[in-house]
Amino acid sequence: MKRLAALSLVASILSLAPAALAQTTGWSAYGGDTANTRYSPLARIGTTNVAQLRVAWVLSLGSLRSQESTPLVVGDTLYVTSSHGPKHVFALDARTGVVRWRYSPEVPAGIEQFTCCDVHNRGVSYANGKVFVGRLDGHLVALDAKTGKEAWKAQVVDYTQGSVLNSPPTIAKNLVVTGFAGGEFGARGYLVAYDQDSGKEAWRTWTVPGPGEPGNDSWKGDSWKLGGATVWGIGSYDPKLNLIYYGTSNPSPWGGIARGPDSSQYGPFTNLYSSTTLALDADTGRIVWHYQSTPHDAWDYDGVNELVLADLPVGGQTTPVALKADRNGFFYVIHRQTGKLLSAKPFVPINWAKDVDMATGRPVEVPEKRPKLNYRATDVCPHLLGGKNWQPMSFDPQTGLVYIPSLNLCMDMSGSEPQYQRGKFYLKFDAAPKAGPGGHQSEFMAWDPVKGQKVWGNPDDLVWPGGALSTAGGLVFHGDIRGWFKALDARTGKMLWEFNTGSGISAAPITYELDGKQYVAVVSGRTFTIPLFLGAIGKQMVDATPEGGSLFVFELPTK
Amino acid sequence: MKRLAALSLVASILSLAPAALAQTTGWSAYGGDTANTRYSPLARIGTTNVAQLRVAWVLSLGSLRSQESTPLVVGDTLYVTSSHGPKHVFALDARTGVVRWRYSPEVPAGIEQFTCCDVHNRGVSYANGKVFVGRLDGHLVALDAKTGKEAWKAQVVDYTQGSVLNSPPTIAKNLVVTGFAGGEFGARGYLVAYDQDSGKEAWRTWTVPGPGEPGNDSWKGDSWKLGGATVWGIGSYDPKLNLIYYGTSNPSPWGGIARGPDSSQYGPFTNLYSSTTLALDADTGRIVWHYQSTPHDAWDYDGVNELVLADLPVGGQTTPVALKADRNGFFYVIHRQTGKLLSAKPFVPINWAKDVDMATGRPVEVPEKRPKLNYRATDVCPHLLGGKNWQPMSFDPQTGLVYIPSLNLCMDMSGSEPQYQRGKFYLKFDAAPKAGPGGHQSEFMAWDPVKGQKVWGNPDDLVWPGGALSTAGGLVFHGDIRGWFKALDARTGKMLWEFNTGSGISAAPITYELDGKQYVAVVSGRTFTIPLFLGAIGKQMVDATPEGGSLFVFELPTK
Repeated sequence: MKRLAALSLVASILSLAPAALAQTTGWSAYGGDTANTRYSPLARIGTTNVAQLRVAWVLSLGSLRSQESTPLVVGDTLYVTSSHGPKHVFALDARTGVVRWRYSPEVPAGIEQFTCCDVHNRGVSYANGKVFVGRLDGHLVALDAKTGKEAWKAQVVDYTQGSVLNSPPTIAKNLVVTGFAGGEFGARGYLVAYDQDSGKEAWRTWTVPGPGEPGNDSWKGDSWKLGGATVWGIGSYDPKLNLIYYGTSNPSPWGGIARGPDSSQYGPFTNLYSSTTLALDADTGRIVWHYQSTPHDAWDYDGVNELVLADLPVGGQTTPVALKADRNGFFYVIHRQTGKLLSAKPFVPINWAKDVDMATGRPVEVPEKRPKLNYRATDVCPHLLGGKNWQPMSFDPQTGLVYIPSLNLCMDMSGSEPQYQRGKFYLKFDAAPKAGPGGHQSEFMAWDPVKGQKVWGNPDDLVWPGGALSTAGGLVFHGDIRGWFKALDARTGKMLWEFNTGSGISAAPITYELDGKQYVAVVSGRTFTIPLFLGAIGKQMVDATPEGGSLFVFELPTK
Repeated sequence: MKRLAALSLVASILSLAPAALAQTTGWSAYGGDTANTRYSPLARIGTTNVAQLRVAWVLSLGSLRSQESTPLVVGDTLYVTSSHGPKHVFALDARTGVVRWRYSPEVPAGIEQFTCCDVHNRGVSYANGKVFVGRLDGHLVALDAKTGKEAWKAQVVDYTQGSVLNSPPTIAKNLVVTGFAGGEFGARGYLVAYDQDSGKEAWRTWTVPGPGEPGNDSWKGDSWKLGGATVWGIGSYDPKLNLIYYGTSNPSPWGGIARGPDSSQYGPFTNLYSSTTLALDADTGRIVWHYQSTPHDAWDYDGVNELVLADLPVGGQTTPVALKADRNGFFYVIHRQTGKLLSAKPFVPINWAKDVDMATGRPVEVPEKRPKLNYRATDVCPHLLGGKNWQPMSFDPQTGLVYIPSLNLCMDMSGSEPQYQRGKFYLKFDAAPKAGPGGHQSEFMAWDPVKGQKVWGNPDDLVWPGGALSTAGGLVFHGDIRGWFKALDARTGKMLWEFNTGSGISAAPITYELDGKQYVAVVSGRTFTIPLFLGAIGKQMVDATPEGGSLFVFELPTK
């Protein structure tokens, strides 16, 4: 009780998310707002009535592969994408689920070979009457939000090199900004911005510096040309600072020897800007600051996890921070204006590094836990899927807590030295997963980002929990691989309600209000490709539920 | 009001379905009982509280093709199949939807080419601790109901000739009886019975008589060898009479010239037992009586629709009848012991025949409406999909009414003379569909089988309504192509409740009771292949909803 009271106090001290980022009663961006908080001020559904929650309607998405989409709600229209590229973008009446239009682009045959991790899609972005969606075929498309007709289409990248688009772009003023995947295919990453109206390219920033640019000397020889550091995840935007934040992927190839020494003594070969958080000037794409969480990565500790922007009391001062639960197992708090590292604490069991040196920002590595050629590092934690993967976390300014769908897997992993072939995997996969300390495979947890410690956690014997939503109703919502969609008490983690959707849930829920009624929505549909990498643990995932593909929308009974 | 009162009186006179066929509170056979009434005595959910119905849980079926499965509930276990052959048989906790076992047989690659009308499956049958399922690969399999392990497997037919199993078999005493599809591939039909315990074949009855057998001379030359008359639908069983009832498919090929004269003057060439209702002795498979609804069929007026067994007051006498809403548009009432035709009335607009001659049982054909080689019959009603297709009807002994998911399509159709090639379509498709009189494409209707007239109807501008369920709660449930699942007042057809499942519903609902709680369940998932035959009308179907594959289970709120 004392701890809860203290938390309440913290919450009352906290300023909310910056006013300019504040939510309407819709859900206008992938992360709820461009701060990626996934917090909603709606409170009609709360701890006392959530047990009555029921399905209002369902939409079949017409596809069965990994469903990862976050719907948007703008006005009374709900936009959601299916998997397969997307196979479909749907615009629906957000009250009834009746389809207003459907955009069903041709998905090139055989495109699956150019994806590392399934033919998924995470949703659309919205601005000024247009809906923007990235496609597996390397195109960013702008659709008329009323009709679904293509307004413009831009080729971001040639997908046949193994570079696909699967995340919604970031909206910043008049621009729409996107990256692409390909860190497993030897792509060299970049971000590109287009004018929302015309589709004209405004800027392009390489995430692996070329010759003559600062950071290019962090790569051995010509390795920068295939350096990875792609941007396949979700961006954030702070309109006051006019900064866009993105995490970059692992460097290519996975084995470190192509990019520097095959050891933890990598000296200058940090391989910038791989596994890095970047802050870019929204108007020009200039990199204003960077923080590399895993220098010379050899574990696939991909740094793409989303940055959540919040204003937190750090050292007694309200501070604009960016929060990141990194694949590498550290939870980072970074001053989002200066890039200064404020804290780095393990949120899951970690043994590849002892700590992070706060002076240099560098992890203090445990040398025997780095995979090397002809050397198998054993019992390395976390597993390459990370302490958290792409499934989004949520920051609740009322509790001051971050809700993290964390993973608890470790691995044995050998180094490798693959040969590059265009459009093929640029890695040799040799990693055996196992459950981490405690024997559970995942844990949905509440994390205090100021104290750098866990507040509560719900361990799950199976892996791959779904993304999080927190609300002013004192609730946190998330799904699991067994298909259960749950509402928890945000302060205690106690389960207050659950519903069986019949297929695994990876995607994150949203909430919105229309005509005085609050709805909660989530996409259900088990991950398809991830189990293929996980041996016996993957078999457990497949056995947990069939593939699926449905949007579920929930409401309270009308009387 | 007067009419309703009269109906009530009729209902009170009616004996219920024969006692031996009476339902438990589960759902033990495809048609609810082996009389195929699809009527449940459960009444906790009724006209006054159905508006509160809500989703209890959902199961993703892991497949997206035409979903046609009726679940069974035996004890506290619910059994349901997916499409694709089936791709999966699921056994679930009928309260929570938690999967107990899953049977996922290999589905041969390319099997789709041997199916006329998609890789669907209509569900399982149950008897004495075993679950029986027909597979597209021509096998009937017995599974242990507790574990899902194969007890035995029998090859019914070689699927590579274009003969697949897609319907659950019929249970009769110690036997399990099945047919197969193939009327579009020149298969010669038969029914086969196996011992439930051992899988040993007990009898086999050809539905096209061979040389020397009565009826063989109803075929021109050797045409009987490719005669069709396959049994791909659902059987009924009357344990008192020990008779099994099945409808047979169209003759092969579609065009009549191979099988007799290419005209309505077909003389003896009726092509027995195609488009026929058969009553067979359950122990021996002997054909006890037959009634051919469409002699020398040239329209694909496939006669497979299910026989519903009821005891009705005919001519003032309670009479054991079999009811059939035929593809050819006539609603037949047949004495189910003797095979005597008691009535034949059009339940949809018909113009291929003026009437049925009650003395001979033969339709009085309109010659110009028969398609012939080099002759296109125009505006023929009904369309080849029939006045009703496989979607099951329901008989409610309380109202005395049959609830029919009827179709209202007509066509222009030419005759054809195809060449036989093993494993290929044995037909030339040349039929253009159009909406029938009134402009609507379908109508969910209540039909008085004694008076031979429609009592009420709900026209739908789109085709392909879902199968029916009636209950003692005064309700009729069915779905539609837009994905809405509806509860109607059984006496008036008034819609009392609807729910948007997000994909078209063709399958029929069921209801069951467990721990004092009544559930209603239905499989959602739009037909995939039927629209391909329907041109612009098919496009409307595809646009109506995405493909899907989910079992929805509904309940009343607990308080």
